[in-house]
Amino acid sequence: MAGAGFPYAPGADPAKRAGEAIALWCEHLVGLAGPACVAVKPQLACFERLGAPGWWALERTVAAARSAGLLVIADGKRGDVPVSAAAYAQGLIGSTPTPWGDVPGLGADAATVSGFLGADSLAPLVDTAAERGAGLFVLVRTSNPGAADLLDQPSPSAPFYERVAAMVDRLAPGLAGDGLSGLGAVVGTTEPGHIARLRELMPRSVFLLPGVGAQGGKAEALGDAFAAGPASAIVTASRSVAGASDPAAAAEGLRAQVWDVACRAESTA
Amino acid sequence: MAGAGFPYAPGADPAKRAGEAIALWCEHLVGLAGPACVAVKPQLACFERLGAPGWWALERTVAAARSAGLLVIADGKRGDVPVSAAAYAQGLIGSTPTPWGDVPGLGADAATVSGFLGADSLAPLVDTAAERGAGLFVLVRTSNPGAADLLDQPSPSAPFYERVAAMVDRLAPGLAGDGLSGLGAVVGTTEPGHIARLRELMPRSVFLLPGVGAQGGKAEALGDAFAAGPASAIVTASRSVAGASDPAAAAEGLRAQVWDVACRAESTA
Repeated sequence: MAGAGFPYAPGADPAKRAGEAIALWCEHLVGLAGPACVAVKPQLACFERLGAPGWWALERTVAAARSAGLLVIADGKRGDVPVSAAAYAQGLIGSTPTPWGDVPGLGADAATVSGFLGADSLAPLVDTAAERGAGLFVLVRTSNPGAADLLDQPSPSAPFYERVAAMVDRLAPGLAGDGLSGLGAVVGTTEPGHIARLRELMPRSVFLLPGVGAQGGKAEALGDAFAAGPASAIVTASRSVAGASDPAAAAEGLRAQVWDVACRAESTA
Repeated sequence: MAGAGFPYAPGADPAKRAGEAIALWCEHLVGLAGPACVAVKPQLACFERLGAPGWWALERTVAAARSAGLLVIADGKRGDVPVSAAAYAQGLIGSTPTPWGDVPGLGADAATVSGFLGADSLAPLVDTAAERGAGLFVLVRTSNPGAADLLDQPSPSAPFYERVAAMVDRLAPGLAGDGLSGLGAVVGTTEPGHIARLRELMPRSVFLLPGVGAQGGKAEALGDAFAAGPASAIVTASRSVAGASDPAAAAEGLRAQVWDVACRAESTA
């Protein structure tokens, strides 16, 4: 039975009931949209606002994704000084030693992170990811209009986000795979004009492309992101899939569209 | 009895035992160092790496701080696109509506946040903080060596962090109090040469000053931060207090030093 083992009985307080409902809904959604997806990207904010019951719901969502053969990208955009970044690495992709034994973290395959504080703030995350065979997606140029406030501002010769991209590429060998690097980049899709230049600056990084659908980004404009190969970009469309009246059809439609774009990019490359 | 009501019996799994131990230790630390402090600043990474039991320990630490009459600064450095920033605002300082009633968030008095994604990513946090009488500390110039990678880089006429500071000051009226604004700034203390200029750029913001002690910052170099009044800056020294053999004495020693610096700054101003 769905929900067996979840520690909160119906009738408990609002946080526990909401946590249970969210876990059930996420499990259901993984079942519906999963066959057309390669990964789930839980937005941590939406879980942690329920406190401990939210964290249980997150763990259950991760377990459902795993059972369905999907990758898990923990979308928390964490970024902190090195000592704290190491703790985030333990929580998201590693584990935490305690006197009573290791506490496993969330077990994500990858996490979104912020490099705002510089390369040393990413180092503990890169180290843990390398150890665990996990990946990271560093915020480079996000999809919100306010990204223009800081990220698009000129540094002496180029916009600031190009400097972030250069930092990502410099760190990419730390998660080098077979051709591509697991040190990826979050590149918003609402301003697709940036994408070709960012692919040039980060030829090895897997791109995570949010903003398609609900935020106005278009899959057909993303070909440049796939210039490093058909596996070199992941398109995310959480809200337009989760909020669709038929999530399975919405996911499958987008999958077909993205596959088409990726194949065309490859044949041009 | 300490620990009464905590849902995890000793003998349970490592995460639960570690969560219980951390909660007890944090309660103890609040009792020892609290009398010399104005606030506790829990680093969320250190709690969330234990999953749900970590979140329980965090809630218990917050409750202990409140009982001791201390403010709570949730140190999570969250920063995301507006829709997700709104969820973080609910989780840290607001509450989340559910069909079964409102779920209260952590109830922090303030939170550290990242403005990397621009002003619109801060707006939902500012709105919630204004509603709840809470404050925010935006990362401006952090205390890690890597801050030089991006934050210290020149934009056309000044280092990039000055641009961040200008954004903070532009948003400060949204949390205006009596003279000072609750939209504060995180300004690391390991490079105190920046502080006078940042006070000039953000005359209304309360400064949160990490990096004293364990990270090498010195309290006596922070006078410029207090130029907007003795309540215009908060010095944090989590590791050098929590890791001291006598946390009460360490906190009291730092309190006396900071008070001296703040008073001297005021008499000069």
